[in-house]
Order: sequence, then C-alpha cells, then structure tokens
Amino acid sequence: MSSNLGITSRSENYSEWYNELVLKADLADYSAVRGCMVIKPHGYGLWELMQRALDDMFKATGHVNAYFPLFIPKSFFEKEAEHVEGFAKECAVVTHHRLKPNPAGGLMPDPEAKLSEELIVRPTSETIIWNTYKDWIQSYRDLPLLINQWANVVRWELRTRLFLRTAEFLWQEGHTAHATFEEAETEALTILNECYTKFAEEYMAVPVIKGVKSEGEKFAGADHTYCIEAMTQDLRAIQAGTSHHLGQNFAKAFGVQFVNKENQLEYVYATSWGVSTRLIGTLIMAHSDDKGFVSPPKLSPIQVVFVPMGRDEATRERTVGASTTISDELKKAGIRVKTDLREKESPGFKYNYWEMRGIPIRVEVGPRDLDAGTVIVARRDTGDKETVALADAAGRIQTLLDQIQKDMFDRALEFRNANTKRVDTWEEFEQTFAGEGGAGFVLAHWDGTTETENVIAEMTKATIRCIPLTPLEPSDAEPGTCILTGKPSKCRVIFAKAY
Amino acid sequence: MSSNLGITSRSENYSEWYNELVLKADLADYSAVRGCMVIKPHGYGLWELMQRALDDMFKATGHVNAYFPLFIPKSFFEKEAEHVEGFAKECAVVTHHRLKPNPAGGLMPDPEAKLSEELIVRPTSETIIWNTYKDWIQSYRDLPLLINQWANVVRWELRTRLFLRTAEFLWQEGHTAHATFEEAETEALTILNECYTKFAEEYMAVPVIKGVKSEGEKFAGADHTYCIEAMTQDLRAIQAGTSHHLGQNFAKAFGVQFVNKENQLEYVYATSWGVSTRLIGTLIMAHSDDKGFVSPPKLSPIQVVFVPMGRDEATRERTVGASTTISDELKKAGIRVKTDLREKESPGFKYNYWEMRGIPIRVEVGPRDLDAGTVIVARRDTGDKETVALADAAGRIQTLLDQIQKDMFDRALEFRNANTKRVDTWEEFEQTFAGEGGAGFVLAHWDGTTETENVIAEMTKATIRCIPLTPLEPSDAEPGTCILTGKPSKCRVIFAKAY
Repeated sequence: MSSNLGITSRSENYSEWYNELVLKADLADYSAVRGCMVIKPHGYGLWELMQRALDDMFKATGHVNAYFPLFIPKSFFEKEAEHVEGFAKECAVVTHHRLKPNPAGGLMPDPEAKLSEELIVRPTSETIIWNTYKDWIQSYRDLPLLINQWANVVRWELRTRLFLRTAEFLWQEGHTAHATFEEAETEALTILNECYTKFAEEYMAVPVIKGVKSEGEKFAGADHTYCIEAMTQDLRAIQAGTSHHLGQNFAKAFGVQFVNKENQLEYVYATSWGVSTRLIGTLIMAHSDDKGFVSPPKLSPIQVVFVPMGRDEATRERTVGASTTISDELKKAGIRVKTDLREKESPGFKYNYWEMRGIPIRVEVGPRDLDAGTVIVARRDTGDKETVALADAAGRIQTLLDQIQKDMFDRALEFRNANTKRVDTWEEFEQTFAGEGGAGFVLAHWDGTTETENVIAEMTKATIRCIPLTPLEPSDAEPGTCILTGKPSKCRVIFAKAY
Repeated sequence: MSSNLGITSRSENYSEWYNELVLKADLADYSAVRGCMVIKPHGYGLWELMQRALDDMFKATGHVNAYFPLFIPKSFFEKEAEHVEGFAKECAVVTHHRLKPNPAGGLMPDPEAKLSEELIVRPTSETIIWNTYKDWIQSYRDLPLLINQWANVVRWELRTRLFLRTAEFLWQEGHTAHATFEEAETEALTILNECYTKFAEEYMAVPVIKGVKSEGEKFAGADHTYCIEAMTQDLRAIQAGTSHHLGQNFAKAFGVQFVNKENQLEYVYATSWGVSTRLIGTLIMAHSDDKGFVSPPKLSPIQVVFVPMGRDEATRERTVGASTTISDELKKAGIRVKTDLREKESPGFKYNYWEMRGIPIRVEVGPRDLDAGTVIVARRDTGDKETVALADAAGRIQTLLDQIQKDMFDRALEFRNANTKRVDTWEEFEQTFAGEGGAGFVLAHWDGTTETENVIAEMTKATIRCIPLTPLEPSDAEPGTCILTGKPSKCRVIFAKAY
C-alpha cells in the first residue's frame, strides 16, 4: 500500500517496494527516453562518493584514468568472435550525422548525411581501446598499461529497472595490458580483492562472495571472469563487480604485439573490469526497509540531519543555534551534515522525509530537551533513539556513524549466512527453487559442463553465480557428485536466482 | 621542423606546432572514429584537476550534480525555435537499436529494430532537462533548482582539432531554474565571476575579458549570453566559457510553470552555462612554447619531476636517496611529484621528455652537486636554473611553484595588453585584420546591429568577441561612431579573429 509519504512494504510486493523507493528517496527518475534514467542529485551524490572511493583505490594500485570515444565503428565488433555474440546485438546504432527539415513537418535524418559505416554507442570499450593500444604498445617497456575510464555506456535492454538494468548507465571500465599471463592474472585478482571486495564490504557494507564465473556466465571474449556476488533481501543473487582475464583474445583480434625481453614478438595479455551505477541498486536491495532507503554512513551524501523544532521565533533561534554548534563541530571533523530549516513542515514530516532518503543519523533538537541540556539522536538503521548531552553530541554521533557502518555489514552477513545452505539431492534442489521468489544461496555439486548448467537453469531458474575462490566451509572444496547428473564434481558451486 | 623529440616552432607554423604538441606531450591522440579524440592519461589527469577545482567552486556556490540521459528524442529539438536552428543540424542520429548478421557478411542494422522516433546524441541538454524539470517544479518552494552535470556531448563538426573542436567532447553543463528574471541574472553572473573567471585566472593563469555576446553570437535559445574571452599566442580570441540567461524560453517551450508567492502561475526563468575540454586547448595556446607544453602548477598532474643521475649503482643509490628525501617532504605538503627512474635513458632525454609534457619544475640530482650538498632546480616556464641547498630544496620548490603560477598569469596579461589596441578608422581596422593570422584584440565602436556585425565579419574575418562588462579603460565606455557605418555607438566592443 503506497501513500503520498510511504511506500509499498517489502513483504507485500518487493518489486514495487524497490521501484517506489528509488523514486521517493529522490535517487533517480524515469526519463522521456525509453530505458534511460535521470540520476537525481541525491542519487548522484551517492555515486560521486562511490566514484571517489573507488578511484582512490584504483590510483593506490597504480592505475591512471583516460578517456576513449563514445562511438565504436561497427566493423570493430566483427573482430572478436565471442565478443560480437555478446555485445553487438541490442545496441544504439548511429546511422546519420545530420537532421534536416522534413517536408511533412518537423525534422528527419538527412539522407545525404548517411554514414559510410555505422557507429555503435559503446556497450563496453574493449574493441576501441585495443585498437588504440595497438599504436601505444611496441615493446615490453611500454607495459604494463594500467588505464581506467569513467564513462557512460548503452545496452538496449528490453526490460529495464532504475539502476539495476537501464539502457544507459554510468560505470568505470579498467583496461590493462601486460607482458605475461601471470601478470594479467595478478592484475585481475588485485582489482577483485583490493578494490571491488574492499569497496563492497567496507563502503557499501555488503558482504560478497568472490568467485570465478562458469564458462556459460563469463564475459564474452574473456579467458575467465572473476566476480563478487551479493545477496538481496528477497534472497536473490546480484553481481556487484566483475574482473576479466582476457588472455590474448583482444590482442589477437586487433593485432597488438610487443617485442619481449628476449626480442621476440608476442601478443599482449589483457584484463578488463568494471562496476556501475547498478551498485546503487545493490545497495538498496541489501539494506533498505519499509520506511525507505538505508544508506551506509560512508556513502550517504548527508550523514547527519538536524531537525531543530519550535513554532515561535525565539524557540527556533535556540534550537537552530544548538544545531549549528554541534553541526559545526561535525563539519570540522569532515562529517557531511544538513540542517532542515523548513518552517512549514512538521517534525514528523521531516523525520519521514529524511528516513525515506536514508540519512544514517537524525538529531532532534527540541526546546524541552535543550532545557535539560540534551538532544535526541536517532539511528536510521535500527530506529533506536538515545538522549545525549549537548557537550557529548558531536563525539557520540561520530562513534555512532562508525557503529552503524559496522552493524549494517554484520547484519547483512548474518542474513546471508542464514540464507545459505548446502543441498545434495535433486529433489531438495528443485523444491528449494520451486517458488516464484529467491531462495538464497545454494551450495551444490555440479559436473562442470555448460550443458548441465543450462538444464538446471531451465528447470529451476537457478544459475551458477560463481565457483567460490575460497570455500565458505572447508568441506565445500571436497569433491562430490553433480546434483543433476551424478557425475563427478570438483567442489560445490553457488546456485541462486539472480537479478 | 619536427624531429622525434622536438616539434615545429610556433613561428614556423603555429597550427602544426599545436597539433604536434598535443600528441607529443601525451595529452591526446586521434582515434579510429572521425573527429573523436582519445584523451591520454596525462591530458586526462589535467582534466581531472580542472574538474575538481570547478566542481568545488560550483558546490561552494550552492550547486549539486545530477545526470540526465545521453539521448534526446528528435521532437524535443523542434520545440524551441532558435535552439533547433543552432543545434539540430550536425549531430549523431540513432535510428536503430539492434545489429544483425548481414547476408553479405559482417553486421548490419536490423530493419526490424528501427526506432519509431530517432534519438539524437545530446549536443547540449537544455531540452531533455527542461522536459524533466516540468515534473520537478510546481511551486516557488521548488525553486531555485541549481543543478550541474558532467557529461560527454557530440556535435558533428566538419573540421576538427584535438581539444579545440572535436565531435565528442567532455564538459560540464549547469542548468538552473529560478522564480524571477533578476534571480536568474544573478546566477548567470555568479557563475561568470565566481567560477569561470576565477578558474581561468587563478588556475589556468589565463587572463580573460568578461563580456556579453552580441545577438549574432549568443547561444541559440538564450535571452543573452555572458562569456569570458582569452587571447592565444597567435593573437586570436578563444572563448573560455559561457553563461547564458535563457529567460523563459525553455520553460515556455516545455511548459514549465510554477505557482508563485502570489498564488499565480508563471513560467520559470532559466540559466545554463558550460566549460569543456576545449579549456585544455586554451591552456596550450596561452602558455606553451617551442619545447612543448607549459602547464600552470595548479593544473599539472605532476608538479615536480626528479631526475636522479649516475651510471653506477652506488651513485644512483645516493641520487635516488636524495630525491626521495626531498620528494617525501613535498608529498607531505600535498605536492604532486614523480621521480624518473628509467635507467636506459640519458638525463638530456629525460629533460626534453618532461619539458615536452609541461612539468613546472625539474630537479636535477647529480653526484657532484650532492658532494656540494645541493641540487639544481629548473623552471619549465622560463628555463631558469638555480642551485639550492638540500635542506632548503622542498621549501624553495614550494615557493617557486607559487611564483611560476603568478608569473605565468602576469606574462599572459602583459602579452594581452601589448596586443590590445583601439582603432577608430575603417582603414586602420581593415589593415589590422588584413593578414592571414590573428591581430590581437581591437576595441572599436559598432552601431549595435547584426547586419553591421556580419558585414565586418565578411570583410575582415574579425568578429565581435564580446561587449566588455567593465571597460578596459574608462574611455571605452564612452559613446562614439561605428567603425563601418559611422552611426552612433554606445561603447567600444572587442573585435578579433577567433578560434
């Protein structure tokens, strides 16, 4: 049941809950262009904090940023056989470079301005980048090349959802070039471990499982794909980042060779890796509640909101004054604060308003509390309220922000663990995934073939999210027999219904 | 004369000098897509510093960032009459959303995936944004809306030049909404004064003249356009930023009305303003020399480069050690430093290499100087070298960085003043602009009509760059007679050949 202020509850309709939350929390909006979203200031502020944290990690691991063209010549997609299968289908195709007045009224593409070769709006940039690297790499001394780009990409998705699946989205894509397979392997894992996992767990407060994708789920054109997988509150898996070891595939497709230390020509090894605005969808799915968005403190554009009360000017002067004293101290400590000075809205309205937008801490500053030398500090994640002495408020709030960040991660981890199980019979497996909704993570044995993976997916809608790099329990790494075919299996893999 | 290391001199061929410099300084590269550039890491690092400084200024003046779609429905361009004239001509038109195998080989746009309405890759976003604002603005309480976006845009330019004029470029575009004409006017001027002028002069070290554009040169769809104009070393004008007061034009085109305090429906007032990667071209044109790029310290991705010398390991250990001591101290002070540890390249090669890339200060660390307890500190802008005691080095370098920033601005200002003159006869005016090249800024009287402006442009290639907001000399504000027609003129305006 949705009202002007509230949103549908998760239990009532999880999907509606998500859609309404994104709109009412001022994170994003639909646009006039099918499948494209508007990222509103509050949502974009979150994305800027994500970008800053990730960018710092990329730079700390030796990467630099650059920018490559938005357009990719059509023929480039024809060069890497697997890649064309994966990416040259649903995409935005530019065919003309001019509009002219239409005799029937309005404007039309000018037939005389038809491009000799169509341009594709990049769905990902491996092809245009490796075509460029060809000119930049001659010798082992030019390697490694460790470049990242922040950009928009377009994939013409048929069914779109704000943040989770949009025709245009924002992302970063790293594209690195290396002299050896081993070096590229180290790079792909460095990104997975030191950037993506760290970011998901320490900033988003979302626990993730690191793993390698099956052949069926890997990136089109990769040797192998690493990923991090998170769990949503409706018990589905959501991929939160991928890091691909591309082998020599793109170097061969674009003829990128280098003279190695032994003075021999060799093809370059590559990685690529990316995370996108989809992470905002992941964040919502992991933490939010029926009152709206719940943001981890590290990523909230506003970390603390002050609501000073009082109907008469003299009282407001007191409560605003007390708010300012505390907020100035917080600002000095680098905390992002906001004071809600709107005069026509009630405190109750303001509480709901900022709860919907996920602000981690609310400080209620009322005249009676001030008489007692205190304010009320409310946590968004738990709803807990406490009375804090004015002099202690700034310190207590900073401690609480750290505590909220930690508690959000711990709760998400507990939730994931409680919804992860091991299944050893096909009957139980089918039953587990029988309902419409998600069923958590299921660790089961699989014979390693794409054929079996496909049959399982058809029968249950559960797919292999990843083969964990580290077993969740030691026994997960022991061999067994495939849940469907009974053939030998090397280890348990994670099955789930996925976003 | 261009060699492997050097570039054509400015006096020999200014245009070639510029093109070679951009490539050899590792700022940008040509791409496989006509008119689109690759911004290389060194150039992108510069852009990131520009972004950071500008973004901080936008936020300090109350703005927030958001993101709007890349695509604009064709019909949106038909809604604002002047705007369609200006922007709906040379643009990238998306007509299909899928590729399919071509029976003749390769891929082709799928005729079954033709869009019912073509999409234009945004050349600027007024239309899609005002279509969105329609839903966001109902009451005066929703105003002002102070939003900026960092984005890529595409204008299908016929003649392109790296940074200066590319089919795709990166920029920021601010789009604000206000309740009154006066408030929008204040906004447009705040951006011009507190952001753009400040950025150009304090960061880029480029003096600019603030002015208003003539009707003929204003933004398509604006009420009036403010701009800042800089001078290049070949004596042309280059526009370094524009801030438009859009009046109610876009609000009317997209039906954006609000209920004002008097409870009446009224159309919203708008501004838009932008600067782009073209600023990098401006920067090069303002300061660089025949040895390559000269970057102002505040925008150089590397501010100080250390070149430790020595052929044997023991010597190198000493010189690298001394470099590290100084560079650690600089890093602590927030200075961006780099030590060139390449072993196979000579010091001379390295000097040229970093000079080409514009690094403001080079520190030469040689064994003999170390014996004397000193290093050599060389300025990129003047070529001056000085011997500095090891213990004083970090302090001296910081002072020098500030000095270089200041000196670069002062020299550019002196250059501009020396190449600005007042002309009062048509004969002298024609003669001034007779040559192929630029002729500096000419302050002359003009009768205020677009007709006269066009005739002057046809006859001399000189255009009105702006009507200065503040007279350069008090007499510039006095009335006179038009240089061409002899009709009355309110004040002198700036004529120049422009990029």
